[in-house]
Amino acid sequence: MQDKRPQILVTNDDGYQAKGLHKLAELMCRVGEVTVISTERVMSAQGHSITTQNHLRVKPVERAGAYRVFVCNGTPVDCVKLGYQKVMHCRPDLVVSGINHGSNASVNVIYSGTMAAVIEARMNGIPAVGFSLDCYDADADFSHLDDYIVGITRQALEKGLPDGVCLNVNFPKRSENPIKGVRICRQAKARWAELFEDHYDENGEPYYDLGGEFVYQDEGNDTDIVALQDNYVSIVPTGFDWTVHDRMTALCDYTHLCMKGG
Amino acid sequence: MQDKRPQILVTNDDGYQAKGLHKLAELMCRVGEVTVISTERVMSAQGHSITTQNHLRVKPVERAGAYRVFVCNGTPVDCVKLGYQKVMHCRPDLVVSGINHGSNASVNVIYSGTMAAVIEARMNGIPAVGFSLDCYDADADFSHLDDYIVGITRQALEKGLPDGVCLNVNFPKRSENPIKGVRICRQAKARWAELFEDHYDENGEPYYDLGGEFVYQDEGNDTDIVALQDNYVSIVPTGFDWTVHDRMTALCDYTHLCMKGG
Repeated sequence: MQDKRPQILVTNDDGYQAKGLHKLAELMCRVGEVTVISTERVMSAQGHSITTQNHLRVKPVERAGAYRVFVCNGTPVDCVKLGYQKVMHCRPDLVVSGINHGSNASVNVIYSGTMAAVIEARMNGIPAVGFSLDCYDADADFSHLDDYIVGITRQALEKGLPDGVCLNVNFPKRSENPIKGVRICRQAKARWAELFEDHYDENGEPYYDLGGEFVYQDEGNDTDIVALQDNYVSIVPTGFDWTVHDRMTALCDYTHLCMKGG
Repeated sequence: MQDKRPQILVTNDDGYQAKGLHKLAELMCRVGEVTVISTERVMSAQGHSITTQNHLRVKPVERAGAYRVFVCNGTPVDCVKLGYQKVMHCRPDLVVSGINHGSNASVNVIYSGTMAAVIEARMNGIPAVGFSLDCYDADADFSHLDDYIVGITRQALEKGLPDGVCLNVNFPKRSENPIKGVRICRQAKARWAELFEDHYDENGEPYYDLGGEFVYQDEGNDTDIVALQDNYVSIVPTGFDWTVHDRMTALCDYTHLCMKGG
């Protein structure tokens, strides 16, 4: 008797029409039964945002193909929550998100809707992997990733993932040279330094557009950024316990504050 | 000669009219020079969202008082970025966020706009503290927190914070009994289990409202949730390196995947 095929929920933060989403869904069809739930609009850089002020709606998208597609008016995290509870009517064996048009290495993970969906799934105990390509083009070339994505997905399904860990997988942009392999990395230290230029609208009112410069602040060779530069796939085991455990004792002075109440 | 007073940026995610924001700003006036930059709308549960699709605008709010207030059409993270770069014209000595109307203990920190502002500041090297009260009322009673907030703030300014660490401070709701003191805690393990009810609009179309049940999954006594239950202030040293360092070796199998390119 054949084993039941794994149920895979696919989402992203670039919207339901993104090339990377459909590339990922097609690859997942080699591995299991695929349900796609994505956002109406581009929801990049929405972090772990959820919809609390509006009603959420999910609708099927009519299309031919090997997988079902649903569109949601919320965020990537809403897609995961609604997807496995109201659309799939079963707990998926795996949630995958992407392929993001743009890197989620280093501190980009903190702003990422793609990885927020992955983290949301893992918080609910579902193995989850986010895939991102270090290229922002809407028509990015994803053709060098097939075996890596299928291989990583199969391994996550077969062996599971450590408790409280999801995977943040980033790929180098396609170049003349084939990808050299996979490295397990840590999130590189960096920050975005915004440089706001003053703009003025037709009424003379000032406005700003968010933009900035990526400032690398790491000296190690074991980071995701270095892996991508070296033409490797980076995999960062990513969690959701934000406690800095080894700094708890450094704060013990705060327990001695003499308080008398407000 | 007197030392220059510290420059303090105050923000939140409940909007510029929230009671908790102005309570915090008033308390900060005891400690330094205060600039408030908050959001036009309530931006709870917007996580580390930033505004990339619209122009950002900041306007002063006309009012009498000991501190200046500016309102921004973006997210709490946008407020921090714009606040210290375009409004204050100087690097603040401290960023504080809150007082949030609602707990940011345990996994609530992951959804929190209040704490996203704090993390954004700390990523840029600025000491930062988030304050939240375990009470969601718009007219919540914050009167028991004065000495704790001033004391914690002064200590953070005088002694600084460990590298890569900001503080997630949560307060118990006012009760008959005074707060017992301060505990340094870790983020409790828990999850939000959504229970989506089916609703139908006037056209018969289904919709859902996000809501859920907090499922506690921790057995330790050193968590923020236990501290609040015991009527203590919880302080969690909170970071932004999401790598689960001690699970990197557990993933070494992924580096042996036999890949031939897509």
